[in-house]
Amino acid sequence: MQNRLLLTVTVEREDALRYTPAGLPVLEMWLKHQSRQSAGGFERDVACDIQAVWIGEDARKHAGKLAGQVMNVTGFLGQRSLRNPRLVLNIEYVEFVKG
Amino acid sequence: MQNRLLLTVTVEREDALRYTPAGLPVLEMWLKHQSRQSAGGFERDVACDIQAVWIGEDARKHAGKLAGQVMNVTGFLGQRSLRNPRLVLNIEYVEFVKG
Repeated sequence: MQNRLLLTVTVEREDALRYTPAGLPVLEMWLKHQSRQSAGGFERDVACDIQAVWIGEDARKHAGKLAGQVMNVTGFLGQRSLRNPRLVLNIEYVEFVKG
Repeated sequence: MQNRLLLTVTVEREDALRYTPAGLPVLEMWLKHQSRQSAGGFERDVACDIQAVWIGEDARKHAGKLAGQVMNVTGFLGQRSLRNPRLVLNIEYVEFVKG
């Protein structure tokens, strides 16, 4: 079952770090993507904003320092919750892009 | 600039084929994804519904026969429109998964 998203983004907003009841660090943020893509033989500008959640030690290490950063993120798409169908990127890897 | 989504989906609903003013075939559909993914060291069920648009000759060839089909789709994420931020998958390749 494939579910893999690779996206170059700028961190628009980063929420405060929080912890799950089991003590796992969780970082939520809003990401902006802009690029040119081709579809049906035509090139066009593409933009989107996507909410993301990053769980684990790496998230804790980078918390508070992400706003404005440009990153290549890899992860999978899921729904915000059972009742909220908004798409959320669950981050697995982050590669920081030098400015 | 990375913007690539690979997703295994079932076609929930397929709209009627239409054409752009330039005569390009455009097929819009609703896709459902379900899988198990791991995040922060934990495995969990992941589900999402995503709207998709498929432009070009391949879309025309498969129009009307997609509902219920299971496919591996590859494409890029974009916003529905300037005023509608809903995320839409722009399909570039489709691989049909045998039933």
